[in-house]
Amino acid sequence: NDISHNEAFKALLAAKKNAEESNVLVNIAVVDAGANLKAFVRMDESYLGSIDVAIKKAKTARYFNIDTGKLGELTQPGGIIYNIELTNQGLVSFPGGIPIKNKDGKIIGAIGVSGGTIEQDRAIAIAGAKSIID
Amino acid sequence: NDISHNEAFKALLAAKKNAEESNVLVNIAVVDAGANLKAFVRMDESYLGSIDVAIKKAKTARYFNIDTGKLGELTQPGGIIYNIELTNQGLVSFPGGIPIKNKDGKIIGAIGVSGGTIEQDRAIAIAGAKSIID
Amino acid sequence: NDISHNEAFKALLAAKKNAEESNVLVNIAVVDAGANLKAFVRMDESYLGSIDVAIKKAKTARYFNIDTGKLGELTQPGGIIYNIELTNQGLVSFPGGIPIKNKDGKIIGAIGVSGGTIEQDRAIAIAGAKSIID
Amino acid sequence: NDISHNEAFKALLAAKKNAEESNVLVNIAVVDAGANLKAFVRMDESYLGSIDVAIKKAKTARYFNIDTGKLGELTQPGGIIYNIELTNQGLVSFPGGIPIKNKDGKIIGAIGVSGGTIEQDRAIAIAGAKSIID
Repeated sequence: NDISHNEAFKALLAAKKNAEESNVLVNIAVVDAGANLKAFVRMDESYLGSIDVAIKKAKTARYFNIDTGKLGELTQPGGIIYNIELTNQGLVSFPGGIPIKNKDGKIIGAIGVSGGTIEQDRAIAIAGAKSIID
Repeated sequence: NDISHNEAFKALLAAKKNAEESNVLVNIAVVDAGANLKAFVRMDESYLGSIDVAIKKAKTARYFNIDTGKLGELTQPGGIIYNIELTNQGLVSFPGGIPIKNKDGKIIGAIGVSGGTIEQDRAIAIAGAKSIID
Repeated sequence: NDISHNEAFKALLAAKKNAEESNVLVNIAVVDAGANLKAFVRMDESYLGSIDVAIKKAKTARYFNIDTGKLGELTQPGGIIYNIELTNQGLVSFPGGIPIKNKDGKIIGAIGVSGGTIEQDRAIAIAGAKSIID
Repeated sequence: NDISHNEAFKALLAAKKNAEESNVLVNIAVVDAGANLKAFVRMDESYLGSIDVAIKKAKTARYFNIDTGKLGELTQPGGIIYNIELTNQGLVSFPGGIPIKNKDGKIIGAIGVSGGTIEQDRAIAIAGAKSIID
């Protein structure tokens, strides 16, 4: 149960369309079930620093099958997994990474978005992930 | 005084059995007295991101001969060893790493567990470490 | 003078079409004029190890504005830039990376392809780069 | 189609048995279809440096679905993919890494062995991989 490149493109383009409609410039990364990069695009004029952030958001979302924003609630000072971001060659624990499920609810990959506000990034990532089950 | 691979397997399997009985999916790593990887297993469907976390928990536990959860009390903002997690290519300072002692109380290695809650991870790691002196 | 994401997609899809017609499974990466990742796709069942090779081929082609295969002639033992592959966090000096030019002959990015034979990878990369000036 | 932890253990133990019968001290690593670590053991008195070599052999074998020794024939000075070892954070291109197939011939992971001669490492890895289809 692994995302296909056609599905990865579908998620990428759905996310990009959502970003364009919201006038947000983002980087979008899709990883497969093994957390390996499957598809990527950086929109013109979006942040260069968001390349790595988008990829790490997607990887983090698949590494722990979690909305990356949820992870961040646990990694703050005093949190139960404080500083886990230092593992796995760098995790991202703020919103913008979302697992991608197939119609059976099985996780087949993940999408990471970076470049807008964290709320925008998260909404765009969700639009991408949702396109797979529509 | 170094853990043997038979002992490492024993600890690994005792931890795995404990995890299965508790219905938790985890990664389990055992390191030797030199903090080098000795044995490892990733249970099916457990988090991909827990591979590195489990190994780093085991290494951290042996690097400082400490229950990794105890370390976390000292690494918070304002703590006496704030951000020590940045050393040694990444430490983990929350529960789930436990030193392994032999029957004479000598530390011969350590075990790290990741995939459940921090309480579950710690209990599973303790079950693994304890199997060596039973 | 920088490749746009639409052009990057165009190159990516032209390369992918060429690969599919040749029955080759590849990873395709496009970088911009700043050698930063712009677009990427990994075809289903293509090599996992080719993710990094494709990206490094594209970067290498832009770092030195060169067909990566040409670089390899100079990096062999006794060559004038022996082992330059060790710089820039890893270069690739065999065929499959090609600069992308616009209609004025200005280099605006590069494309890297990995997964087939080096001749196939190079032909696919050229097809991708060529699509921008057709 | 991914190797299970029971299959990974089976391959690990079959390889270890083969090593013990040949009086060779080795490190043995098994990765899954996504090239992520699944199981590992370091035999007592085997080389510390072989931990990373064994893991990288297994990853390399899965990255390119190849007997790592075959890769080495192509990466020598003058070879068609000279210095590819510098990609993917370090590949190993000498014998000892073997893809693991299931009974249908589908690659579900890989095994890497390090510590003996390259012929011994390769034979032990093959014994491990073979155990899955016996």
